[in-house]
Amino acid sequence: MQMPLSQPQSQPPSPPAEPDNSYEALFASSILRVNQSLERFLDKQAYDPSPQANGLWEAMRYGTLDGGKRIRSVLAMEVCKACGGQENTVLPTACAIELIHAQSLIHDDLPCMDNDDMRRGKPSVHKAFGESTAVLAGDALIALAFGIISKETPLDGSVSPQRLLSVIGDFSDVTSIRGLVNGQFVDILYEGQPFNQEILEYIHVYKTGALFRFSMGAGAKLAGAPDFVVDRFVTLGQKLGLAFQIVDDLLDIASSSEALGKTAGKDQLQEKATYPAFFGVEASRKQVDQLSQEAFTLLEETAGMPSGYDSKALKTLVGFIANRIH
Amino acid sequence: MQMPLSQPQSQPPSPPAEPDNSYEALFASSILRVNQSLERFLDKQAYDPSPQANGLWEAMRYGTLDGGKRIRSVLAMEVCKACGGQENTVLPTACAIELIHAQSLIHDDLPCMDNDDMRRGKPSVHKAFGESTAVLAGDALIALAFGIISKETPLDGSVSPQRLLSVIGDFSDVTSIRGLVNGQFVDILYEGQPFNQEILEYIHVYKTGALFRFSMGAGAKLAGAPDFVVDRFVTLGQKLGLAFQIVDDLLDIASSSEALGKTAGKDQLQEKATYPAFFGVEASRKQVDQLSQEAFTLLEETAGMPSGYDSKALKTLVGFIANRIH
Repeated sequence: MQMPLSQPQSQPPSPPAEPDNSYEALFASSILRVNQSLERFLDKQAYDPSPQANGLWEAMRYGTLDGGKRIRSVLAMEVCKACGGQENTVLPTACAIELIHAQSLIHDDLPCMDNDDMRRGKPSVHKAFGESTAVLAGDALIALAFGIISKETPLDGSVSPQRLLSVIGDFSDVTSIRGLVNGQFVDILYEGQPFNQEILEYIHVYKTGALFRFSMGAGAKLAGAPDFVVDRFVTLGQKLGLAFQIVDDLLDIASSSEALGKTAGKDQLQEKATYPAFFGVEASRKQVDQLSQEAFTLLEETAGMPSGYDSKALKTLVGFIANRIH
Repeated sequence: MQMPLSQPQSQPPSPPAEPDNSYEALFASSILRVNQSLERFLDKQAYDPSPQANGLWEAMRYGTLDGGKRIRSVLAMEVCKACGGQENTVLPTACAIELIHAQSLIHDDLPCMDNDDMRRGKPSVHKAFGESTAVLAGDALIALAFGIISKETPLDGSVSPQRLLSVIGDFSDVTSIRGLVNGQFVDILYEGQPFNQEILEYIHVYKTGALFRFSMGAGAKLAGAPDFVVDRFVTLGQKLGLAFQIVDDLLDIASSSEALGKTAGKDQLQEKATYPAFFGVEASRKQVDQLSQEAFTLLEETAGMPSGYDSKALKTLVGFIANRIH
C-alpha cells in the first residue's frame, strides 16, 4: 500500500551524537567557575566607586577576561579535587594564577619587551589602552592577585591560616625573581644571542615552569595533602610546564596567527631561544611525549592520596597539554 | 711668667656640641634596621644561585637600596612601637612598604610614564639598566614584598596568622587599583589637562596617601591594637600623606635638582595637577600646617592605647614631614 505523500515518512534513526571530548567540554565546569570568579573579582563593585580610574580598570578586565584556556587554574582546581580538597578552597588561588598569567602577558607584550600587537585574538593591552596604562594594569593585577588569595580563601577548617600564608609565600617565590620574572628576563637577554641547552632549560623552567609548578603544588597544599605529595605535584607541574612550552614553540612555527590568537612565527623572527630552534621539530616532539609519559607515571602514584583518588581527569589534562593544536 | 712656646697652651673649654636633632639622627636606629633588613631580603643568598638573572637582581637592589628617607617604613615602625608592639613584628612589613615605594618610583620614571632620568641622585633604573629590566624589576619587587610579609613576620603569639592575612589583604588594597596604582593612573591622565580640587585630592589620596595610610594602620594592627585605634592611625596616615605630598610639590618648585636628588621643576614642565599650581604656594603651605595640627591632635588621643603610650617620636616625625627641605 502506498503511503500518502502528505504523511511524514519514518526517518532512519540518527546515529548517537559523538560525545564532545574537547578540553573546553570536559573541563567546562572548572573553566566556568574560574571565569565567573574572575568576573566577580574584577567587577565594578569589587573595585572602587570613583569613575576616575575607569580606564585602568577596563584595561585590567580586557587583559584578563574573555580569553585564555585557563589551563593553569584548571590544573590547580583538578589537583585539589583529586587530592580530596574542596573547589571553593582553591578557587581564589586559581583566579590569582590567571591574574598573574594575564599580567605577565600584558607586560611581555610591551614595546620594550616582546613588542607584540596581538594577543588572544585582539589588540594587546598597550595597543588598546596605551603603554602607561598597560604597565599600571599589570602592576595592579599582581597586587590584586595576592589580595584575592589572602581575603577570598574560605578559612573553614580545611585549610589553616598558616597553610594559606605558606601558599602566599610560594606564590611570591614563583612570581618574583625566583620565578617567572626571572625567566622573562633571561628570555629577553638571550634574544638573538647564542644559547645552549642549559640556558634554554633555564628560561623554560622559570618562565613557564614556575606557574605550572605552583598551580599543581598549591592545588595539593590547599587540599591538605602531606608535603611529599605536594612535592610530587610540584615535580609534575615542572614537567607539564616544560611540555606546554615546547608545544607552544612548535605551534609558533606550524600555526597561523589566526589559529593562535597571537602573532605566529615571532620566535624565529626575534631569534628566541626555543626547543625547536635548538633540537629541531622532531626531537622536540619526542621530548613532549617523554615528558607526558613521565607525568602519567607520577599520576599513577597513590601513596599519600585519599582513598577516592582518581587520576582520570588529570591524565586527560596531560593529554590535552601534550597534544593541543592551539 | 711667660710660658715656653713649645708647651701646649691651655684651650678655653669648647662649648657642648649641639645635639643632632635631624630626622636621620633621631630615627637612625629604625632607618638602620630597615636598611639592614632590605639588604638581607635582597641579598645574593635570599635570591637564587644562578648567575643568569644577575642583571635583574642588581636592578632591584639599585632601585631599592642606598637611598630614600624611609619615612613610610619608619612611620610603620614608630606607630607599632608606640602602640606597644615589637619592632621585629613590623620590620618585614616596613620593608615591604619600601619595596613597593621603590617599585612605584621605578615604573613612574619609565619613558611611557613620567619619563624621568634622575632619581635619588643617580640615573633612574631604566637609564641604568634598560627599560625592559626596569619593568621586570618593578614586577619582581611587588611580588617579593608580599612574600616578605607572609614569610618573614614572626608568628610568636603577638600577631596571629589571621591578623597577618588581614595585613596582606590591606597591603593588596593600597597597592592595587584601590591604591597607589589608581593615583598614578589619574595623575598621568590629567597631565596638561584642566583639573579641579576634587581631582587634585583624588590623585593625592591614592598616589601618596595609600602607602601612608597603610604604614600607620599596619603598624597599629601588627601591635595588636583594637580596630578603632587602627582606624585612627589610618586617618592620621591619610593626613600625613597629603601633607607630605604638598611639601613635595612645594619643594619641586623651590629646590634645585641637586638638593632633591631628582629632576626639579618637572611638575610645572609636565603641567601636573599639584596643590601649589591650584591654590598657590602660600595657601598650600597653610594647608600643610593645618594638616600637621590635625595630626598632632590625633596623636594626643590616648583611648585604646597601652599605658606606656608615648607620642613624642610620632610628633617629631609629623614635624619633619611638614617642615622637611629635601
